[in-house]
Amino acid sequence: MSTAPASPGAFITFDGPDGSGKTTQIKRLADWLRERGTEPVLLRQPGGTPLGERIRSILLDSRSEQSLGEIAPLTELALMFADRAQSIRQVIQPALAEGKVILCDRYTDSSEAYQGAGRGLGTDRVLAVHRAICDDLQPSLTVLLLPDVDQALKRARRRNERFKQQNNGADENRFEAEGEAFYRRVHDAYTAIAKREPQRVVLIGPGTGDDSIEAIAARVRQVVEQRLVAAGIRV
Amino acid sequence: MSTAPASPGAFITFDGPDGSGKTTQIKRLADWLRERGTEPVLLRQPGGTPLGERIRSILLDSRSEQSLGEIAPLTELALMFADRAQSIRQVIQPALAEGKVILCDRYTDSSEAYQGAGRGLGTDRVLAVHRAICDDLQPSLTVLLLPDVDQALKRARRRNERFKQQNNGADENRFEAEGEAFYRRVHDAYTAIAKREPQRVVLIGPGTGDDSIEAIAARVRQVVEQRLVAAGIRV
Ligand SMILES: Nc1ncnc2c1ncn2[C@@H]1O[C@H](COP(=O)(O)OP(=O)(O)OP(=O)(O)O)[C@@H](O)[C@H]1O
Ligand SMILES: Nc1ncnc2c1ncn2[C@@H]1O[C@H](COP(=O)(O)OP(=O)(O)OP(=O)(O)O)[C@@H](O)[C@H]1O
Ligand SMILES: [Mg+2]
Ligand SMILES: [Mg+2]
Repeated sequence: MSTAPASPGAFITFDGPDGSGKTTQIKRLADWLRERGTEPVLLRQPGGTPLGERIRSILLDSRSEQSLGEIAPLTELALMFADRAQSIRQVIQPALAEGKVILCDRYTDSSEAYQGAGRGLGTDRVLAVHRAICDDLQPSLTVLLLPDVDQALKRARRRNERFKQQNNGADENRFEAEGEAFYRRVHDAYTAIAKREPQRVVLIGPGTGDDSIEAIAARVRQVVEQRLVAAGIRV
Repeated sequence: MSTAPASPGAFITFDGPDGSGKTTQIKRLADWLRERGTEPVLLRQPGGTPLGERIRSILLDSRSEQSLGEIAPLTELALMFADRAQSIRQVIQPALAEGKVILCDRYTDSSEAYQGAGRGLGTDRVLAVHRAICDDLQPSLTVLLLPDVDQALKRARRRNERFKQQNNGADENRFEAEGEAFYRRVHDAYTAIAKREPQRVVLIGPGTGDDSIEAIAARVRQVVEQRLVAAGIRV
């Protein structure tokens, strides 16, 4: 007798602006999956592989700019995708092949929002690089956390202030040193992605109800069950 | 009185397989330019900027694979272009704006030959990334050094053997650990590029005459004078 065919696995990404609750919600969903007997594969981008962690430290540490010179926006874009290609090969493809559930903190939507819209490199350019470098690998499901933009800015600033006090005035990361206009471009890009790809992207944003951590966690669980179980994916 | 308008500058790339004489010929041409009062900007890829040198060490040092895990071909491609974007921003664009002559050791043709053909990622994919990440910046002139493939293999092996003896059996770099079929794919891709873009690419290869270092250096000087002086570029 042969063993039962493996579940097809699921590649679930969490995306949204800084401080929107991605890490918080991934933890909640991971706990829930574990209770149901499914150990998820956790991944963050950039990072998640040894090479990715080296790229991450170049990208996110604003202090590295002193020794490396300013990172050009197109360099940043290529590094983001280098990290992603390595995650796909070393983590995502093997996990999917084993029928696992992957919870990934940021993916190409972040590049489209931050580099494409925020830094003005353009959506078409980012998606062209995605097709070339990620072989156009799409998530099974994307949970897009998009709080009200003013509220998100407030949260990010509060966190950055705490960090500054503890780190001699250094900003927590390069993105958070950007201005409010940048943040609004990022927000609008995320909104456009959700409109463009309703099959893949579930938007949890302002006006979608109670926005407490627990209420959002419950919505995420509901979406994951509906979408994935309906698609024959075991969770 | 205003100063004379600056010369438009020139972005000259040298490309070709490992051991084809790029570094040797760049040195010769640089000496000749200096004698004529032009101090060229020298650049190598990968490398050439502080960030590029960090990328270079990841890419070329086969020993780094032990700690980082194997670098996926698409990761390699993205890292190559990250380096290139940084060189364009930090070195090439400023030098061109000052009317300088840049001599660059490898550029996108290398990615097309090595990653596109050698590793089988495909020319179209590599050129798509080039358009996105390099904003399609093309060299004014490319000197393509393409010795007979068997002769080039012999040279590369001899050099690698020397390196191995001095480094406990480690290969000099990852590319040179590849087999002969890889080398032939690279060679054929370079030939195809020269055929496709005769305006930009000057092929100096087997059957183009005396292949001593000095004879090739003389041909390179001749081509540089013809092409660039004719285009109103001061050298
Ligand atoms: N729904 C919520 N209501 C109120 N506070 C929240 C909510 N979700 C998260 N937070 C708080 O906001 C802060 C940021 O959350 P979290 O770190 O999960 O965001 P993130 O999207 O992972 O941020 P980053 O992009 O910077 O990694 C944390 O202090 C978290 O406790
Ligand atoms: N025309 C030539 N005839 C004979 N030997 C040559 C010729 N050109 C270069 N060489 C020798 O071949 C070796 C490789 O040359 P060089 O380092 O310039 O190649 P390269 O293209 O820069 O190689 P790499 O891609 O590995 O950097 C050197 O030892 C050099 O002296
Ligand atoms: Mg987070
Ligand atoms: Mg060389």
